[in-house]
Parts: sequence; structure tokens; C-alpha cells
Amino acid sequence: VAKVFIDISVSLDGFAAGPVVSADHPMGIGGRVLHAWSSGGDVAEPQTAPDQDAAQAMFANTGAFVLGRRTFDVGEPLWGEDGAFERPCFVVTGRRGLPLVKGPTTFTFVTSGVAAAIVAARTAAGDKDVCIMGGPAIARQALAAGLVDELRLHVVPALLGNGARLFDADKPQGRFQALGVSQTPLATHLHYRVSMATPAGQ
Amino acid sequence: VAKVFIDISVSLDGFAAGPVVSADHPMGIGGRVLHAWSSGGDVAEPQTAPDQDAAQAMFANTGAFVLGRRTFDVGEPLWGEDGAFERPCFVVTGRRGLPLVKGPTTFTFVTSGVAAAIVAARTAAGDKDVCIMGGPAIARQALAAGLVDELRLHVVPALLGNGARLFDADKPQGRFQALGVSQTPLATHLHYRVSMATPAGQ
Repeated sequence: VAKVFIDISVSLDGFAAGPVVSADHPMGIGGRVLHAWSSGGDVAEPQTAPDQDAAQAMFANTGAFVLGRRTFDVGEPLWGEDGAFERPCFVVTGRRGLPLVKGPTTFTFVTSGVAAAIVAARTAAGDKDVCIMGGPAIARQALAAGLVDELRLHVVPALLGNGARLFDADKPQGRFQALGVSQTPLATHLHYRVSMATPAGQ
Repeated sequence: VAKVFIDISVSLDGFAAGPVVSADHPMGIGGRVLHAWSSGGDVAEPQTAPDQDAAQAMFANTGAFVLGRRTFDVGEPLWGEDGAFERPCFVVTGRRGLPLVKGPTTFTFVTSGVAAAIVAARTAAGDKDVCIMGGPAIARQALAAGLVDELRLHVVPALLGNGARLFDADKPQGRFQALGVSQTPLATHLHYRVSMATPAGQ
């Protein structure tokens, strides 16, 4: 059955991006460390097999992506001529715009909110999954709205101390079911089934 | 070599206690879920071997504990006649008081701060380790002061939505080295070596 999953990296202190996100610092100041596990790491701490598996899981059965406007704005120059995702991508934004085609990747701009973007992505994905890749506000809104089936959370062993938290203002409550974990020097990869229906008990 | 480690449970959204900590809700409202892995779980989700191993690791080579005043105040009625820890315990507090002896456990009240409590605990522990068991402010201050060698973090698969964050106002920066992970339905047990010396890079 096709599912909707969030795939996002956070620091050990819960930040999905460092402060002052900009073209120069697309993950915020200090935030580059968040994606070392997926981008290959460096010589001292290379990517290892569980990192590669986690990176592949973001794409393997994915038919469409959902992302926020800021993620699109800072990511687009980095994603190259083919747009990197090779799938229909739905950008949640307040600004209207014609779809942007970059080779096998299309970016469609959705001005009616996260839920509408997920519906559009589900349709585009057919029997494949929908991946919500962030930013954190988009992921949080989707969780709070009960629209998420699974969470793939990559906890990077660094403290950023500041930035955009994955879990912040919307304060969703819920319990998750552990589906697996792997750990490398670059990240601990956590996989959960999401159940927002049951609020946390006493 | 004797080391200082933090042993603390947090929700997936980073709270080490729910809101409104009181005698009725010693872990805050909704916070009881944070300690299900160590207290035995329930019938639906029983404690399993990795949970028991994690609980034992808090005591196995530990010669003394450090805790905050609020943790002491809400925990003390629950810890029974023998004080539960069977080790010298150092309570960081603003209120002076004579040591409290409960069978094999002694609680000594330290009014000169976290660092002084850790020094006293190190002396009492001899060649054994010192465990900082929280609350979150005590753990954070110890981290920020560079006094912590290892972190044992138990991430419970629930969102509390509110309460006291482990990583909040003091905003320490640093990188951690993964030492191991295990996962059960009740918690993901993360073990890190702490290095606060190197601030997070770009």
C-alpha cells in the first residue's frame, strides 16, 4: 500500500537546519553536518553502508516528493540541471508559479497548503509512496494533520544549539512504533510507523 | 578510567519531562511514558532485553550519582526506604541541608553548583563512574561546562508536545561519537562519547 513518509535529518538537539538559512548556507550556519551521511561524508568520516541504505530508502519506492518553498529556494541551485529527484515534486508555497521542468524532475507550486500538496503528490505517485523531505515546518504540519504514515529520522551526532527545530511550535502529540534503527559515525537512522491518533498517556 | 556520563530519557520531540511536574506527575503530565523502558513497561509493551541492559548500564560501574533538586523532590517519595541508588548521591540545590541517609543511599546537598557536585561525586566514586541522572537543566549545564564524557540517551517513541527540553536554553554546541544503539518498542537507546571541544563546523 502506498504510504506517506517524512525523511528528514536533525541534530542531536533537534534542529533540522542551523540558523540563518541562505544561499551561502542552505542548511543554515553549521547545518552542513546534517547531510554528511547522505552526501558522502568526508575523508575522516566516510559514508558507510547503512548511510547508503538510508539514502536509497528515500528514493527506492518513492513516486513523488513534497517540500517547502524555502527548501526549494535554497536547494534548487544545488540540485543541478536534472533537478536531482527525477520524480514529480510539489512545493508548498504562498507564491503562484508555473511548473518548473528540469529534465526528469518537475516542480509544481501548490498554494493551498500542505494537505493539498500531499493529495496532489499521492495522485502523481500512483501506487508508489510520497516522501515529505522538509523543511521542518512542512513536516510538522503534515504530522499534526495526521497525514503521515512513517517517519525516517536521521539523528546526526552534533549539537547545533540554534536553528529550526523539527518539533516546535505546532506541538503535535502522538506515539510512534519502532520499525528499525542503524547507526554509523555520521548518523543514527531511525524508522518509525506514525500514529498520531492516540495522544500521549499519563 | 572513571568517566562522567549522563543517563536520561527524552521523547522523540526532545522533552525530558512533560509539563507541570508535581508529586502527582513526577515526570510531568504525559511524562510517565519516558520511563516505561526502565520501569518494566506494561502488558501490551513489556520491557525486553535491550531495555534491561540499558537500565543495568546506569548502575553497573557507577560509584556516585548527581541529580537536580527537582528530580530529588519528586523522586524521593518513589525511591523507597533504601533510596533506590545504593550509592552516594549529590543533589544540586540552592537550599542547604544535612545529608539524608536512606539505608545504603546517601543524599548530599551541594549548594555551589553542578561542577562542584561533579567534583564531589568523582571523589566519592573513586575509580568508578559518575552518573548524572538529570533533570535536563543539570545535564545541559554539565554538558555546556565540558564536564561530561559520555551520554546515554533513551529516545522514547512518543511526542509530548510540551515540557522541559533536554537541549534548550544553554544551547551547547559540540559533536558526539556514536558508541552503540539498540531499539525496542519502548525506547531507542543511544550511547555517545561526548566532545564539546569542537564546535559544529559548516
